[in-house]
Amino acid sequence: MGKQDSTQPDFPLTKIFMANVWSNVADIIKQHQRFVLITHERPDGDGVGCELALAVFLKQLGKEVAIINNDPLPEMLEFLDEQGCVRVYHPDRDQSALTNAEVIFVLDTAENWSRLGKLGEVAQQISATTICLDHHPEDASFTDMAVIDPQAGATAELIFELIEYMNGDLTLDMALPLYVALVTDTGSFRFGKTSARTHRIAARLLEAGVIPHQIYSQIYEQRPLGHLHLQSQLLAQLTLAFGGRLAWSKVSQETLQRYGVNRRDITYLVDLGLSVAGVEVSVLFSETNNGSVRLNFRSKGRLAVNDIAQRLGGGGHPFAAGAQIEGPLEQAIQQVLKQVQQTWSQDGLLS
Amino acid sequence: MGKQDSTQPDFPLTKIFMANVWSNVADIIKQHQRFVLITHERPDGDGVGCELALAVFLKQLGKEVAIINNDPLPEMLEFLDEQGCVRVYHPDRDQSALTNAEVIFVLDTAENWSRLGKLGEVAQQISATTICLDHHPEDASFTDMAVIDPQAGATAELIFELIEYMNGDLTLDMALPLYVALVTDTGSFRFGKTSARTHRIAARLLEAGVIPHQIYSQIYEQRPLGHLHLQSQLLAQLTLAFGGRLAWSKVSQETLQRYGVNRRDITYLVDLGLSVAGVEVSVLFSETNNGSVRLNFRSKGRLAVNDIAQRLGGGGHPFAAGAQIEGPLEQAIQQVLKQVQQTWSQDGLLS
Repeated sequence: MGKQDSTQPDFPLTKIFMANVWSNVADIIKQHQRFVLITHERPDGDGVGCELALAVFLKQLGKEVAIINNDPLPEMLEFLDEQGCVRVYHPDRDQSALTNAEVIFVLDTAENWSRLGKLGEVAQQISATTICLDHHPEDASFTDMAVIDPQAGATAELIFELIEYMNGDLTLDMALPLYVALVTDTGSFRFGKTSARTHRIAARLLEAGVIPHQIYSQIYEQRPLGHLHLQSQLLAQLTLAFGGRLAWSKVSQETLQRYGVNRRDITYLVDLGLSVAGVEVSVLFSETNNGSVRLNFRSKGRLAVNDIAQRLGGGGHPFAAGAQIEGPLEQAIQQVLKQVQQTWSQDGLLS
Repeated sequence: MGKQDSTQPDFPLTKIFMANVWSNVADIIKQHQRFVLITHERPDGDGVGCELALAVFLKQLGKEVAIINNDPLPEMLEFLDEQGCVRVYHPDRDQSALTNAEVIFVLDTAENWSRLGKLGEVAQQISATTICLDHHPEDASFTDMAVIDPQAGATAELIFELIEYMNGDLTLDMALPLYVALVTDTGSFRFGKTSARTHRIAARLLEAGVIPHQIYSQIYEQRPLGHLHLQSQLLAQLTLAFGGRLAWSKVSQETLQRYGVNRRDITYLVDLGLSVAGVEVSVLFSETNNGSVRLNFRSKGRLAVNDIAQRLGGGGHPFAAGAQIEGPLEQAIQQVLKQVQQTWSQDGLLS
């Protein structure tokens, strides 16, 4: 609780300041030829959507562009990159692209180089100009330049505005990844930072040819049947605690293997717990393939969860956080419930 | 299949025509004092949202307004009407409001008076001017005037445009029900008719003070735990047929009662089947309290389902339809699967 304010940066970005920023970024784009775009480990729709849209735009301007990430795309986003533009970093193949880069865009990733995994270690040693574009309310002093707008629903809003500032031609192959970024990062226009600006940008993307129900189907309607049967198990085990304010469920490695489902593909199921009346926080416990337990916390928006995640050695945002702790599963669940009890007791929530 | 086009009216509504319509509607509003607003049986978010927003607007203009429906609000929308403005039709109490009405707005309801249940029988005998506003692609010649725009994502888009045409002051108590209407009728901005206009209207509603995640939570995050356990059962029983193109699940009256869940509150769960890769159509079979079986059909948008529903004595739209047939449950399932097989065979889909 109260974590929200402490994570707001002390430089509110007015429109005028934003315009100045874009003129600086635009100057750098105009003055250089070779670009590399990267995003955080385990890339999501916003990171990848921004990379793909910005790459198309830079190519429109006649630039050389490589997209290099630390990890592969999640399966649900593979449809965005049928041409295989997004590379997974491989030292031999990608070192020259990185070394020759004049500008590296670090997208949807503030905080520090370590958010980029091994690729971050390499990228920070390149002499290129580095530019961070992000909407996470983090410090971004690790790059040469940064445009951070914590009011944006997704980093894609910044990419849209940069393209617009530079009078880019918004083609469908830009609009599509930007739309995917908006939809996935705002939970279909419902999360806290969805704004009038988010909707106005969505309107422009639809005018560029995006067909919402087709994209929705591509992202969310391609699950194997086993995935839904596993979801059934999670729901059957959904349990309330602390007077109904916390909902938790669990999935073992054995269950994941039985249904042939990747642990990372079910993270979003933590949201199911939030649909119960009275629940403020939902936790999903999932066993990894080395026997440790991954925790995913989600909050409806009144109680912060990143403080609890931090005490368990993890981190995240006030209303979406995570951690990884030692197993076995049942012991991990007890440990976490105890930590929640301690934290909420200290905050006077269980009196 | 192909049903889409045949349901399009042969009067494409250009902007100019729309503007003329609004001037006619505005004239009628200005010239009268006593209004009654009604919507279809088993009202949904769009019907009720339109009623509430239009009522606030008419009261802003100093008019007398009553909202009278055939059925009560669904539980998930009760938060919209804390002051109890929406009445369920009761002959003794409501006859005078209807008899004295100068104008009756029939909202989100084209086709005919029978879509309004018993209330329709009464309303069609009143001498008031009747005006239908709807986005369903149906004939609306049963009212004196009609504004039908099948391109709108929700009837709420028409109400917004009427208010804007008449220079209404868009207050939060109008914006909120209009936003609920948009979100529920477009499936959070994902269904086929979501357009740039839908998003631009949403932007205006957010500027009027709507907070998306609060509304989402009010509508979708107030379920009893039993509801999620019932959902677990539906998912466990989810079955594929016809080479994976159809997914179906079932719920018995006994299961509904065990979990304390109202049959009508689970209709939306038919969407779960659509999340499976390869599935084109999903069917939910739910046993009613008199032993008959309600069928809900949903389609991803390539195969029509209203033709099958019609052959089973029901109806609906190409991609969302329903019917009610005799039980028992297992027999009903076999009957429907046979009907699907016949229809798809005739259409050459199972060759």
